[in-house]
Amino acid sequence: MDFEISPRAREWHERLQVFMQREVLPRNREWVQCVAREGKPAAFLPDLQARARAEGLWNLGLPELAADEPGTRLTNLEYAPLAEAMGRLFWAPEVFNCQAPDVPNMIALQNCANPEQKQRWLSPLLEAKTRSCFGMTESAVASSDATNIATRIERRGGEYVINGDKWFITGAAHPRCTQIMLMGVTDAGADRTRRHSMVMVPMDAPGVRLVRALRWMGCEDHVAPIGELEFRDVRVPVENLLEREGAGFKVAQVRLGPARVHHCMRSIGMSEVLVELMMARAAERRAFWRQVIEYDTVQRWIAESRIELEQARLLTHRSAWRLDREGHHGAWRDVSLIKVAVPNMFQKIADRAIQVFGAMGGSDDTPIHQALAWARLLRIGDGPDEVHLRQIFKLEAPPAWKIADSPYITRPEETR
Amino acid sequence: MDFEISPRAREWHERLQVFMQREVLPRNREWVQCVAREGKPAAFLPDLQARARAEGLWNLGLPELAADEPGTRLTNLEYAPLAEAMGRLFWAPEVFNCQAPDVPNMIALQNCANPEQKQRWLSPLLEAKTRSCFGMTESAVASSDATNIATRIERRGGEYVINGDKWFITGAAHPRCTQIMLMGVTDAGADRTRRHSMVMVPMDAPGVRLVRALRWMGCEDHVAPIGELEFRDVRVPVENLLEREGAGFKVAQVRLGPARVHHCMRSIGMSEVLVELMMARAAERRAFWRQVIEYDTVQRWIAESRIELEQARLLTHRSAWRLDREGHHGAWRDVSLIKVAVPNMFQKIADRAIQVFGAMGGSDDTPIHQALAWARLLRIGDGPDEVHLRQIFKLEAPPAWKIADSPYITRPEETR
Amino acid sequence: MDFEISPRAREWHERLQVFMQREVLPRNREWVQCVAREGKPAAFLPDLQARARAEGLWNLGLPELAADEPGTRLTNLEYAPLAEAMGRLFWAPEVFNCQAPDVPNMIALQNCANPEQKQRWLSPLLEAKTRSCFGMTESAVASSDATNIATRIERRGGEYVINGDKWFITGAAHPRCTQIMLMGVTDAGADRTRRHSMVMVPMDAPGVRLVRALRWMGCEDHVAPIGELEFRDVRVPVENLLEREGAGFKVAQVRLGPARVHHCMRSIGMSEVLVELMMARAAERRAFWRQVIEYDTVQRWIAESRIELEQARLLTHRSAWRLDREGHHGAWRDVSLIKVAVPNMFQKIADRAIQVFGAMGGSDDTPIHQALAWARLLRIGDGPDEVHLRQIFKLEAPPAWKIADSPYITRPEETR
Amino acid sequence: MDFEISPRAREWHERLQVFMQREVLPRNREWVQCVAREGKPAAFLPDLQARARAEGLWNLGLPELAADEPGTRLTNLEYAPLAEAMGRLFWAPEVFNCQAPDVPNMIALQNCANPEQKQRWLSPLLEAKTRSCFGMTESAVASSDATNIATRIERRGGEYVINGDKWFITGAAHPRCTQIMLMGVTDAGADRTRRHSMVMVPMDAPGVRLVRALRWMGCEDHVAPIGELEFRDVRVPVENLLEREGAGFKVAQVRLGPARVHHCMRSIGMSEVLVELMMARAAERRAFWRQVIEYDTVQRWIAESRIELEQARLLTHRSAWRLDREGHHGAWRDVSLIKVAVPNMFQKIADRAIQVFGAMGGSDDTPIHQALAWARLLRIGDGPDEVHLRQIFKLEAPPAWKIADSPYITRPEETR
Repeated sequence: MDFEISPRAREWHERLQVFMQREVLPRNREWVQCVAREGKPAAFLPDLQARARAEGLWNLGLPELAADEPGTRLTNLEYAPLAEAMGRLFWAPEVFNCQAPDVPNMIALQNCANPEQKQRWLSPLLEAKTRSCFGMTESAVASSDATNIATRIERRGGEYVINGDKWFITGAAHPRCTQIMLMGVTDAGADRTRRHSMVMVPMDAPGVRLVRALRWMGCEDHVAPIGELEFRDVRVPVENLLEREGAGFKVAQVRLGPARVHHCMRSIGMSEVLVELMMARAAERRAFWRQVIEYDTVQRWIAESRIELEQARLLTHRSAWRLDREGHHGAWRDVSLIKVAVPNMFQKIADRAIQVFGAMGGSDDTPIHQALAWARLLRIGDGPDEVHLRQIFKLEAPPAWKIADSPYITRPEETR
Repeated sequence: MDFEISPRAREWHERLQVFMQREVLPRNREWVQCVAREGKPAAFLPDLQARARAEGLWNLGLPELAADEPGTRLTNLEYAPLAEAMGRLFWAPEVFNCQAPDVPNMIALQNCANPEQKQRWLSPLLEAKTRSCFGMTESAVASSDATNIATRIERRGGEYVINGDKWFITGAAHPRCTQIMLMGVTDAGADRTRRHSMVMVPMDAPGVRLVRALRWMGCEDHVAPIGELEFRDVRVPVENLLEREGAGFKVAQVRLGPARVHHCMRSIGMSEVLVELMMARAAERRAFWRQVIEYDTVQRWIAESRIELEQARLLTHRSAWRLDREGHHGAWRDVSLIKVAVPNMFQKIADRAIQVFGAMGGSDDTPIHQALAWARLLRIGDGPDEVHLRQIFKLEAPPAWKIADSPYITRPEETR
Repeated sequence: MDFEISPRAREWHERLQVFMQREVLPRNREWVQCVAREGKPAAFLPDLQARARAEGLWNLGLPELAADEPGTRLTNLEYAPLAEAMGRLFWAPEVFNCQAPDVPNMIALQNCANPEQKQRWLSPLLEAKTRSCFGMTESAVASSDATNIATRIERRGGEYVINGDKWFITGAAHPRCTQIMLMGVTDAGADRTRRHSMVMVPMDAPGVRLVRALRWMGCEDHVAPIGELEFRDVRVPVENLLEREGAGFKVAQVRLGPARVHHCMRSIGMSEVLVELMMARAAERRAFWRQVIEYDTVQRWIAESRIELEQARLLTHRSAWRLDREGHHGAWRDVSLIKVAVPNMFQKIADRAIQVFGAMGGSDDTPIHQALAWARLLRIGDGPDEVHLRQIFKLEAPPAWKIADSPYITRPEETR
Repeated sequence: MDFEISPRAREWHERLQVFMQREVLPRNREWVQCVAREGKPAAFLPDLQARARAEGLWNLGLPELAADEPGTRLTNLEYAPLAEAMGRLFWAPEVFNCQAPDVPNMIALQNCANPEQKQRWLSPLLEAKTRSCFGMTESAVASSDATNIATRIERRGGEYVINGDKWFITGAAHPRCTQIMLMGVTDAGADRTRRHSMVMVPMDAPGVRLVRALRWMGCEDHVAPIGELEFRDVRVPVENLLEREGAGFKVAQVRLGPARVHHCMRSIGMSEVLVELMMARAAERRAFWRQVIEYDTVQRWIAESRIELEQARLLTHRSAWRLDREGHHGAWRDVSLIKVAVPNMFQKIADRAIQVFGAMGGSDDTPIHQALAWARLLRIGDGPDEVHLRQIFKLEAPPAWKIADSPYITRPEETR
């Protein structure tokens, strides 16, 4: 066991941090003004992306790039500190083409698309020439149980005909989003996990309608605006099917492992920012004859955040390490563990930060309430806490003994 | 001791519930569409107010109305179930002229204004002819310690000259807001709690600027929009001073007791709505072979909410009862107790509701995330948890004995 | 609604407090030395009981005494402050013949015994001439579901023949315990809640064996020592049956309402002692340049305890009030509410007290760790938290509307 | 970074597990009967120790053994899984001479004793020929602030004269304990952390009195019984001083790092046992038409325990790794992190286990309530939570920016 970061990871991490410090952070206020307040795209973004790419800081979260594809080929574990660094600013990942939901979509395509499909759907994403979304959640069913997904995908000759409604589709409301990785039922009579298929749907296909943009807890996701979508007799060629009919579940799982791990990594980065903000705010204010930071309640909140952060980070690193070594199947339990641990920690830290900040903490002048909102979302998105807790429980090995025979139970002989 | 509601309170409660059910609730969707989505005033509101007033449902939260003032003269305790019923909808209190911050302002004016001031500032509020705000919190200092308030109010001849900045002023951004009850320093050299004075400032006085409207956790308060205000050499006649110079603290306290109690009452009402929503949502969905409501985790959340709600309501009723019998001084501790207990309960219940609802719970289609935001705000507004916990602690009587002499300590003689 | 204690209750409360202060508390160290350390009965107890009885302080928790039975006939609500006062010392209730499990047994006998049975079993208990226990819990089944109770009670002619094992029977290991109120199956084929019957069994009946005395979390209940019992072909006359065959459940429920309420009242009293102990301890020690009580963490623990205590007490009072007015059926929900709320609060306060005390808090020189142990036991005994939460949930009324039709849900028309 | 255990560690781990399974666990009931119930030493222990030593399983927790000293020389990190395995049974560590407080004392002697002192005090401990204790905590002061320690150690010629009282001294009440590593004041006027010295005191020195054995939350530590000690004019030669006068603090710190880490490792082992016990118990019982383990509340408790355990274990491993690489100074923060995280987790898991077990969980037939008691003790011993939280806070780096200048704060220009 070794807790030292590898030299290679350290080098990339430093390079990224320098870039963040020099190029990204100083533009945050401009970004907020432009994108969040005025609702316009940040004009400087394409240039910033070009500069990042020029320094090699591109597609950092894709370990399995082909030889001719641009990017660093860092392992998931090596990516961890980088994702964390990018997570410190909601919009930073896009600078490096590392934003969700595009990266998990790219991973799904890398694993489940054939060469033609890769050419058509993956290549433009690797180059940040377009944006994508992932269509799973539906409003009419409890999508926490993915087998409830009801959108129908029916084969008619050389085409699939799609009918259904999706909502809370991250990125679907982005003006540049052109492709939907869509999950629906192809064989309602099949086994629970073989009913669904995954097809690629162009955003501009007739019958696809962006019903509305959605906010989550009052916040817009400016990087990947959330949309509600309607599919009415949408037709796509059968070539748009990923893998084979009935493989929808499998494709979703390939995608969800890294998706969840990346969210956790970024959440840890944002949590660090929140701790720094608490430190600064509490040091600058006085109440009742003391600096706020002299109150041991505030010190305790910061220390408890540190305890939770260090633990969550280690477990997230182990999940990434497992993903590298054992794939998404082998990493399944670890991913569920962090999927519960990290968003709950993140929410707690954001809640503490609001309390330390007072009114300002709920204003749009800080990232705090949005952090709380994303933390809260992550306790639901990609499977709510309860589904992952259930998973974790099911992977717990029962002991070999019965209580009465257990060596740990010592009921006296004479009472038996 | 008797836990039965009085016949008079019951009668008014029923009358209000009938009105809510018949007149108010059915207009909720229209209100949301009009006010929250389209940003326009609800055209039906004046008419609704007239109807409520015609049924006597007016100024329900003002026990001390003069003989010629309109309203019910219910005690605070009798008001409790009514405030709770109105609290079930964010905008309902305004129908009955029971909305914050106007009601606490009216109470402050009832207690601290002279007859001319009442004529000028109180009367239009009692008739809902205008709206008001209360200017205390400032961005530059920790306003949790009210003695930090730094806005200067300087006497110059027959006028006060006001300079300072206020923010998170509920109601200040309302287009119909015409008056500010403003707290500032008149004598910086005086004793901590005698430095401040309270003056009435017309919203249209030269030098008053609404800097911006503010959101809290992504939510606008549509009933009393939150504003940031700037005061630059604002001049008001000395007649606008409430009570006397140095009495700012006292006026604030007169106002804050009922303000806090009313918030708690309404929070309990909204918490009840959240429990109902959880019940309904969980009953309608299935996940993993069971209805969601069959999961004991969900049942537990609902039951724990019930336990917290019943306790919080009783303590809130006792606070109201004390306010009636002992005034705001006598009710001081009870008010601090509910000021911590109720918002924390409210936040917990809202958080559970989001988890039960899934994505929908954070959308703008339900009142849930706004409920969570208001709950979170109430843990800070009118004094953060920490200030009230400190108050409560300070009112705790130390025991008469030392540990060594305590009859409860039984260190054996032979070890001494 | 009125939160004032009645003059009669106040008078008895004061009388009891004087007696506690003058006669009981000063003997605590002697009691601990004698009973807890040396394992001998407290010689002064009979005399103390006589004095208490002489002052009328006797059978305080029995509202329904017959005209010729000794006691105060206080209502449950009036009893509340008295039970709380007695609860401040583990052994105090026995001084006033108010100890569990005898009082709930007396209540069951008052309600379910015929005159001959009352003469035989109830009278000596009212006079404190003997002690009793209640035989329900069994080690072989999850007794949290009382329908699991498996002890067999078989009619053979004029006798019942009893076979089974009971454990964690409070009072069964008391040397003066002479009677067991025993629950067992008389008709295994009957409806779930009609299978069981309740019979009175003399402790010295052949076939009854005290297998061992039991500790709970390292603590002995010195007032009502806990026992494990074995019944092998124990024969009692059919006259020992309470009510009728199949009524065991009903008898248990009559008994359990007041049993739970009394435990809660006493727990509140002990929690108050713990708060006082925290106050005293923290005021007497210094760490890192400050008195411990100057740390806001400690102040917060005390304040949070106060908030929880005031809420729990009010709800306990309401439960007692309901028990008085609506009987155990009408009080069912309130009793479940406090059955969860109070022990959890009690445990939290005891846990905080240990942290404030340091090592001393876990020693036998304070009542703190025993308090924690009893609090922990009360989260299991008389139905674990989970069973009561389930009860509470089941009594929650579902809303009349479906989510889609709910006036609180405002999904825009155009998205439907 | 690598989360794979080293082959060497794995090999020793397997060897230990085989021994535990074959030799130790099967004797648990005998041990409990003999030691815990009958209060006698376990006759089989010396033989078991001999067998363990014969297999090389001896002094596993001492990385810095001299060439001629018996033991494995495993690093702290390699020791982690072994300590965890031993921690599954309270008495197992003694089989391998790995019990506290002897091991931390040995480490202190390895680092701070001169060769003669090592010969006299360390050698017999390495051979398990004697037992020792560590005398720090005092009843008269808040020992959480170690500078409060008041026992006086005065030089008189070639001797030190010791006067003071110590309590909660683990191991002091063990019949075979012969040596005390004692901390006291040698120079009250010196700097806070230079006032104290550490001397070795024979248990049988005149003036040393074992005042009483102490229980913690009703539990005796049978491996290292807790004692209260009195020192009255105790004289020891100056040769018994460790290091130099004023170095008491430093010696204590050398000792406390590994002491805390080992406690955490063992706590994790016992927590795993508790999870297994919960799994088994819940699978064996039915309540309300379901197996207890089918309730998602129970599944959730188990899953949450798993989440907490995996995180705590990783952080404990990192602490051990740091201790190996950077010594106790470098590991300081990590040790404080686990010193808070692990006992709190341990207590939570033990509490859940009691709830799953029902009455049996608080009986002496399971290790559960003792586990809860030790967990609770660890939140106080070796520094309470609050002291470590404070430490952690103080090691938190404040951000370089002020709030107003922070790139993360985006107050619009026009409002400034």
